Amino acid sequence: MTAKKELQVRAIKNGTVIDHIPADLLFKVINILELDKCPTSVTIGNNYKSDMLGKKGIIKIAEKFFEAEEINKIALIAPKVKFNIIKDYQVVEKSVVEAPNKVEGIVKCMNPKCITNVEEIYTKFKVVNSSPITLKCHYCEKITDHKNIHIK
Amino acid sequence: MTAKKELQVRAIKNGTVIDHIPADLLFKVINILELDKCPTSVTIGNNYKSDMLGKKGIIKIAEKFFEAEEINKIALIAPKVKFNIIKDYQVVEKSVVEAPNKVEGIVKCMNPKCITNVEEIYTKFKVVNSSPITLKCHYCEKITDHKNIHIK
Repeated sequence: MTAKKELQVRAIKNGTVIDHIPADLLFKVINILELDKCPTSVTIGNNYKSDMLGKKGIIKIAEKFFEAEEINKIALIAPKVKFNIIKDYQVVEKSVVEAPNKVEGIVKCMNPKCITNVEEIYTKFKVVNSSPITLKCHYCEKITDHKNIHIK
Repeated sequence: MTAKKELQVRAIKNGTVIDHIPADLLFKVINILELDKCPTSVTIGNNYKSDMLGKKGIIKIAEKFFEAEEINKIALIAPKVKFNIIKDYQVVEKSVVEAPNKVEGIVKCMNPKCITNVEEIYTKFKVVNSSPITLKCHYCEKITDHKNIHIK
């Protein structure tokens, strides 16, 4: 790591580094993870240069480790994001978020006439494309594309 | 500046550093300045230790300089925030945001029956307290306190 790279975002002793976030999705990720309510130190960078993405976002959160359910929500809007678990300044676990095969109960169907929007029914989707993520409703068969994914 | 301090947030060549933001107001400042739409590199830190505030937020935005109108909006929710203008890695201008004496047209009156919420009338307030900021409506004389300030 060069001195310049080190300057980008402060090092954390224990916590989570979320890297390779597409720049246009950074604030959506912040909302989903409710980082505005996080009591520990948080450092967020956006529009940093990335060979892979052009521009990327990165988030470092001290003393915070996410549950699988939270990570899965991120997978829905930003697959390929990396969650790195940091312990004593070292990366002890790396995981690339991958879109699941099916999605149940997290996302709203974008078809206003779908039964899940009329009655209180748990939504169910098949993931028909993983990048960009595209969901097909189990009930009405309408497609909810990545631009219209609203996390409940 | 110590090596540790330098590590907190990457240096910027040209742009604005917004410092001494109360931690609980950081995301409100981000929303008001619409940093989610900012195309240049942005670094945001929150819950950093501060002798003055206990916990503070800091924002660094490359190649971005704010208009007085935008700075005044911040003054309404977070007086005492510092805007530093950076040119060629040096601070060339420091300004502490100060709450104005009166506020016109930016804030919504919290009284739902106020004429400004019924007809299309520009709001007008007198600042009756600057920290925490408290506004008195010119029309209905109701108080809008800092917890209820909604920027239009």
